[in-house]
Amino acid sequence: MKSCCFRSLFLSPKSVAFVGIPRTSGPGTLNPVDNLKRWEYGGQIHLVHPHVHEIAGLPVARKVAELNGPVDLAVVSTPRESVPGIIRQCGNRGIKAVIVTNQGFAEADSLGKELQKRMLDEAARFGIRILGPNTLGISNAFHRFTSSFMPQDRVETPIGLICQSGLFFVGDNQLVGGMGIAVDIGNACDVGIVDALEWLGNDDKLRVIALHAEEIKGGNRFLEVAESVSRRIPVVALKTGRSVEGGKVAASHTGSMAGDDRIVDAAMKKSGLIRIDETQDQADLVRAFARLPPMRGFRVGVVTLSGAAGIMFLDNMDRYGLKPTRLSPGTIDGIQSLSPDWMRLANPIDVWPAVMKKGMRKAFGTALKALLADPNVDGVICIALALAEAEQGHLGAEEVIRELSEDFDKPVVVWFYGSRGEATAKRFEKYGSPALAVPSMEGGIRVMAAMARYEKWKESRTDG
Amino acid sequence: MKSCCFRSLFLSPKSVAFVGIPRTSGPGTLNPVDNLKRWEYGGQIHLVHPHVHEIAGLPVARKVAELNGPVDLAVVSTPRESVPGIIRQCGNRGIKAVIVTNQGFAEADSLGKELQKRMLDEAARFGIRILGPNTLGISNAFHRFTSSFMPQDRVETPIGLICQSGLFFVGDNQLVGGMGIAVDIGNACDVGIVDALEWLGNDDKLRVIALHAEEIKGGNRFLEVAESVSRRIPVVALKTGRSVEGGKVAASHTGSMAGDDRIVDAAMKKSGLIRIDETQDQADLVRAFARLPPMRGFRVGVVTLSGAAGIMFLDNMDRYGLKPTRLSPGTIDGIQSLSPDWMRLANPIDVWPAVMKKGMRKAFGTALKALLADPNVDGVICIALALAEAEQGHLGAEEVIRELSEDFDKPVVVWFYGSRGEATAKRFEKYGSPALAVPSMEGGIRVMAAMARYEKWKESRTDG
Repeated sequence: MKSCCFRSLFLSPKSVAFVGIPRTSGPGTLNPVDNLKRWEYGGQIHLVHPHVHEIAGLPVARKVAELNGPVDLAVVSTPRESVPGIIRQCGNRGIKAVIVTNQGFAEADSLGKELQKRMLDEAARFGIRILGPNTLGISNAFHRFTSSFMPQDRVETPIGLICQSGLFFVGDNQLVGGMGIAVDIGNACDVGIVDALEWLGNDDKLRVIALHAEEIKGGNRFLEVAESVSRRIPVVALKTGRSVEGGKVAASHTGSMAGDDRIVDAAMKKSGLIRIDETQDQADLVRAFARLPPMRGFRVGVVTLSGAAGIMFLDNMDRYGLKPTRLSPGTIDGIQSLSPDWMRLANPIDVWPAVMKKGMRKAFGTALKALLADPNVDGVICIALALAEAEQGHLGAEEVIRELSEDFDKPVVVWFYGSRGEATAKRFEKYGSPALAVPSMEGGIRVMAAMARYEKWKESRTDG
Repeated sequence: MKSCCFRSLFLSPKSVAFVGIPRTSGPGTLNPVDNLKRWEYGGQIHLVHPHVHEIAGLPVARKVAELNGPVDLAVVSTPRESVPGIIRQCGNRGIKAVIVTNQGFAEADSLGKELQKRMLDEAARFGIRILGPNTLGISNAFHRFTSSFMPQDRVETPIGLICQSGLFFVGDNQLVGGMGIAVDIGNACDVGIVDALEWLGNDDKLRVIALHAEEIKGGNRFLEVAESVSRRIPVVALKTGRSVEGGKVAASHTGSMAGDDRIVDAAMKKSGLIRIDETQDQADLVRAFARLPPMRGFRVGVVTLSGAAGIMFLDNMDRYGLKPTRLSPGTIDGIQSLSPDWMRLANPIDVWPAVMKKGMRKAFGTALKALLADPNVDGVICIALALAEAEQGHLGAEEVIRELSEDFDKPVVVWFYGSRGEATAKRFEKYGSPALAVPSMEGGIRVMAAMARYEKWKESRTDG
């Protein structure tokens, strides 16, 4: 069976069988059927349990062999010793795609290694492909399907996730606002990063992929696929286990061999993967790619309510690879004429004195519009206030940022500072701004620099 | 007059006169009297305006000379050309402390420089001290006093702030949850960092000081005061204008000369100031010092629901200066016995399999308690889940972390991951946990390393 067939069996199964499932459902039971019901999954749900006749209002079969109708995908959560036998039963039943969720395999002890091997042998006999073990499996918001027993919100974002841990499967929801399609490869005994990249990389509902890997396997095949995906959409990668200690523990977490980090780094760079170091940066960058137009160069214009923030921008500009911006003649004129005579404006543009004279909308809008229109500016960072409701109307720049960022095809990121920073950023997201709110200015600078590097890499590949 | 007398005139004035004030009050007017009323300031409020008889329900004098009764502090917000004259009027009226809020002085142009000089000359004649210009001034939540025209929440935290920008005066409220006492030195034409450090460094209501500086002045005097304060409470410093470009712009922001960054760095290190690079790290560290017991060494224990997070901890441990932790014999036993047989636990302790068997409270609590009790552990990082309300009761570790961190005199930081991360962290703060919720694990690691370095510096000074 071709990889693309497995893709649909795993990512958009028309029917799923849960083998080994909690007897009860509802809060605290971690019953995956609760998620599927909440997500209004349209496919057939089959359940297998040796002792119970009904779970969550659904009939339960005693064995895999007793299941009625076609089954695209089996999700197996039985004790580890039983898994090779269950795989055989799946094979006999004609099931070709299996997710094994439980821990205790190659990452654990010698028996676990042996069981993982036997499970793979059974799978090979029947042409079954296995995702896992040690995984939450798949979630696909577009197909209203998830194999996960962890409670999850369904949000149709253009964000794909490939990870080796529930930390990302569960946690990235907070960081990026929900994944459209997520694949936890767990121990990656069979389905690995290369498969997952192939599956997600060609999905036209996705605009970006977040990757968390403890081990990069597959050699040239990996490099080819990663490059081919990266030419289409960006892959923002957090490779962990980079330290000696971390690498050792990765072996006992997912049975991974972390590999020499310098080699990994070079390979990732060559294939266009965007490597970042911190979870927050990964999240910011993923959200940026999901929402913003491309950053076509390294020159950033800044509109700020605070001179101090402008200085902080300059301190960090070089450091993260942005370039000084020479504004075109005329760009500064409009905002200069709104500012006090004693003020000589430059980029970053401190609009506070103009705001005091002319109001937020007029002053902030004039500067932002001029920067966005300037061909010497590739993207804009806004530093704006976030105050309590009563004052935000007068001193808020949300609306004018939203409007202007819609009118121009350049990325805009905003850092809201002040007592209501988080709340204002959330509201800004909710109203569907094309601009991106970031939790720190330094983070915003890193986002813009990484976006520009990605475009540059893409260009280098198009020319060649 | 001694510095300590000026301290009380500026930080806890019994009476304040606003010279130059908006004619109207209420949202959008940025009238500082609104803040004082909301804060229930107990002192006398005087207002001076040439054309209006009543503002915000208070009587208004035409001139400084016409003010009745004693005036501890004048807050001057008149056009720059008028300021030297106003200072003279203040001198004649016996006012010894003045805050000048407006911009357009040494940071602006040659006229501004001249005006700043004339203002200082007038002040010198009368023995007046000036804070500013180009400042929001002072806020002191304990005294219910603020000179700021920017809307502000009053929160009595043990956090002091010394800054050169409204960015921090207004913005740190979000980042640290409010400052107990804040001093914006603005252009620092007279009152500078050294004075502010002396004023705040000896205040026993404060446990930590956040410092933002564009210029460090004062040579040996600065070093002495900084060291003396640092011996008592930590000072977490963000020195900006470190880049060549940033330094140039600092000169036009607050008229500061940023100075050679390597010299600044060495001076800060010697005097015990804790230098950080990013606003979010400053905020995390300030909150940590405000709340947590001291970190007496570099050995961190980790309780995690995710093996991947444990690996990420190890990747970052070295990098930020923490040391590997050899747990004492027996520390692991309790949680080992709750885990599956195939699992061999070590630090970081992955408790997820034990949670699946024994529930969150039992498993997480057993591991956390053992780490906190281990003399080979100086502090603990918890990596915990943050899910929707219905599930959080079963899978939340908030309560057990709160309880145990109260029982031990060691710092505990928590990273809540999952769809409700921010909300859970906020709730955790609200219930007054002695543990600290951090927005990222990497940030938590940096916090613990910096806390340990500070204790080590303090020890080095006590021995000497």
